Amino acid sequence: MTISPLARPFPALAPITGVRIGTATAGYKNWSRADVTLVELAAGTSVAGVLTRSRCPSPEVELCRERLAGGQARALVVNAGNSNAFTGLTGRQAAAAQTAAAATLVGCAPEAVFAASTGVIGVPLPQDKAVAGVTAAHAALGTGDFHAATLAIGTTDTFAKAATTAALVGDTRVTLTGIIKGSGMIAPDMATMLGFIFTDAAVAPAFLQAALDRANATSFSCITVDGDTSTSDTVLAFATGAAGHAPLTGWDSPGADAFAAALADLCRQLAQLVVRDGEGATKFITISVTGAESDAAAHRIGMSIANSPLVKTAIAGGDANWGRVVMAVGKAGEAADRDRLSIRFGTTEVAAGGAVVPGYDEAPVAAHLAGEDVEIAVDLGLGSGRARVWTCDLTHGYISINADYRS
Amino acid sequence: MTISPLARPFPALAPITGVRIGTATAGYKNWSRADVTLVELAAGTSVAGVLTRSRCPSPEVELCRERLAGGQARALVVNAGNSNAFTGLTGRQAAAAQTAAAATLVGCAPEAVFAASTGVIGVPLPQDKAVAGVTAAHAALGTGDFHAATLAIGTTDTFAKAATTAALVGDTRVTLTGIIKGSGMIAPDMATMLGFIFTDAAVAPAFLQAALDRANATSFSCITVDGDTSTSDTVLAFATGAAGHAPLTGWDSPGADAFAAALADLCRQLAQLVVRDGEGATKFITISVTGAESDAAAHRIGMSIANSPLVKTAIAGGDANWGRVVMAVGKAGEAADRDRLSIRFGTTEVAAGGAVVPGYDEAPVAAHLAGEDVEIAVDLGLGSGRARVWTCDLTHGYISINADYRS
Repeated sequence: MTISPLARPFPALAPITGVRIGTATAGYKNWSRADVTLVELAAGTSVAGVLTRSRCPSPEVELCRERLAGGQARALVVNAGNSNAFTGLTGRQAAAAQTAAAATLVGCAPEAVFAASTGVIGVPLPQDKAVAGVTAAHAALGTGDFHAATLAIGTTDTFAKAATTAALVGDTRVTLTGIIKGSGMIAPDMATMLGFIFTDAAVAPAFLQAALDRANATSFSCITVDGDTSTSDTVLAFATGAAGHAPLTGWDSPGADAFAAALADLCRQLAQLVVRDGEGATKFITISVTGAESDAAAHRIGMSIANSPLVKTAIAGGDANWGRVVMAVGKAGEAADRDRLSIRFGTTEVAAGGAVVPGYDEAPVAAHLAGEDVEIAVDLGLGSGRARVWTCDLTHGYISINADYRS
Repeated sequence: MTISPLARPFPALAPITGVRIGTATAGYKNWSRADVTLVELAAGTSVAGVLTRSRCPSPEVELCRERLAGGQARALVVNAGNSNAFTGLTGRQAAAAQTAAAATLVGCAPEAVFAASTGVIGVPLPQDKAVAGVTAAHAALGTGDFHAATLAIGTTDTFAKAATTAALVGDTRVTLTGIIKGSGMIAPDMATMLGFIFTDAAVAPAFLQAALDRANATSFSCITVDGDTSTSDTVLAFATGAAGHAPLTGWDSPGADAFAAALADLCRQLAQLVVRDGEGATKFITISVTGAESDAAAHRIGMSIANSPLVKTAIAGGDANWGRVVMAVGKAGEAADRDRLSIRFGTTEVAAGGAVVPGYDEAPVAAHLAGEDVEIAVDLGLGSGRARVWTCDLTHGYISINADYRS
């Protein structure tokens, strides 16, 4: 697999106190790589999550949705190579058996074990391999690190994706580290594949969920590769509390804003990494929408542009085809007034007031589009609603990957 | 331009009494082909239309929307090579001037002249060329036929698309003939490029509109090539009344059902021809959805499948990837119960009751997908809602056409 030209190097990641990692080979496919990951979490770890809105989710998604109500986590199991989605009763039984085995190994209630699986849809997770795999991963606990886990959760990813940041909660420095996988079937509705965030901050589950929801709104919900929403999309955040400060329980807690801002920043970094590994991507595209009637309207317009095959192919071809941007604004279903619309590529305004900017200089636009990072800015001229979303171009590479991939 | 492998031969089309056609070369691009079409309609011709729901429509779309209220048409002007969309005041003035010129030439009120333009967005229609072009087309009235008009309204089309049918209104045989253009920027919201339908039936404008709306719901609204909605999408239906029967004024009029059924059949044929000329298309895909909570839900699920890049690339690769169909059902946002879902490719059921059909025969599925016409059937098992939509596969050809096309 060719590494994405938009790849970023794997960051240096320190361990998070309260988090132990083990990986193993369950052999979900005919390979020798690690494909099952067990993360053991210290007692008292809070958990929050955002899950796919797909109406046909995987058993693991359903399991996480039920268990998030408890707010406490002691383990996370991730399988790669088999998504266990659309596998009926057999798949549900496999997920239950594997997480029950993890609970026994870790010594916790089954409700404190979370799970995610990614890979081919429709093939039940083989229960024997899944249980043997998590047992082997438990035996390896402490030998793995975030880099190993990132590799073990990956499927069609062309590079390992992770990010880290820190925040000050009062005088206490807390670390937030996330790992993520995904490159195709990346889409609007919460968007993204599997992402796991670990922090040593002490955060009550309800506030962790509130901060994650807020972060999600400006990160995972703002990316798209192909407009296709996975049946397995899962982002979970775990807070071990090992940093020892007074727990954050709400927006009024000292340090809550700093923590939430760091979480939002981390999520944005992770989301952008997924776009950078978008199938066939050669350009990273930032779409800024301002002047909409509301932030929600700006988001929908941004995603309409980001999901448009005609906009994405134009960028692939280095074509400042703002007419296609107009088309995508028009089809978004939100208020738009052609005569107030303006469009910028990079720093050059190419259209304003319902028409092309007469004699705009095409040279800087062409130079901008020849680069790896492309910025499209649209101002609706109607209100103060704004949004920023990210996508990649649509290339022959996407077709090659997806017309040849076998189910 | 390579002719689509899914092309259909141009049908034999008899003239429609009350319809006279002339084409000419306005020279909107550096070419010698006809690019302006004038259709003169007999006095008393009724008109109805469905227009793009884009919030950034072209001046011609706005002009049609206003004039449809009058219900009467004496002329239609179509420009190809320049869509006149997003051209501000200059574009509006050009559309007004060209249709005013047509009104003078034909001898009617400006409000009885309809117009459509297709081509590049953002370049104002050159008023001098537009007026000279329609004048030349008027001088040529009667020399053109439907085939000439179909060629003159085309842009990136790889073959000329038209269809004809007939109906019995009482004892009177009426003819319905339609011409259509479009191959990219073809999408859900009413969907399609420019389509013009002519009949010698006598139909009151309000009933013509009602019948066209009903036909649109099962034709133009059920196709997609790339999910992108044009700023110029226009379908107009003209009824000259030359057949001489008692006018159809409502669903109770004798022959109304037969006329409406013929119109729906014609629209479906025209819509399917557009999909058959979808950019880069190599497969014509019919998606049938049954068992949904409502017809509207079935339609949204069908369009979600039809717009999914992952489903469309799978079909391009001859892959019976029903997991991607599950994904597209799941993301549609309509009620779906994984455990009741069943999926058929051709006549073979591949998934049922929440899981793959054990040991289903892959040979007939592979043979079906190797053909030119692919059928995907999804049953939700929830209710009696149903819909049928059409799309094409997503191939390297689409990328080549749209990454290389310059604005």
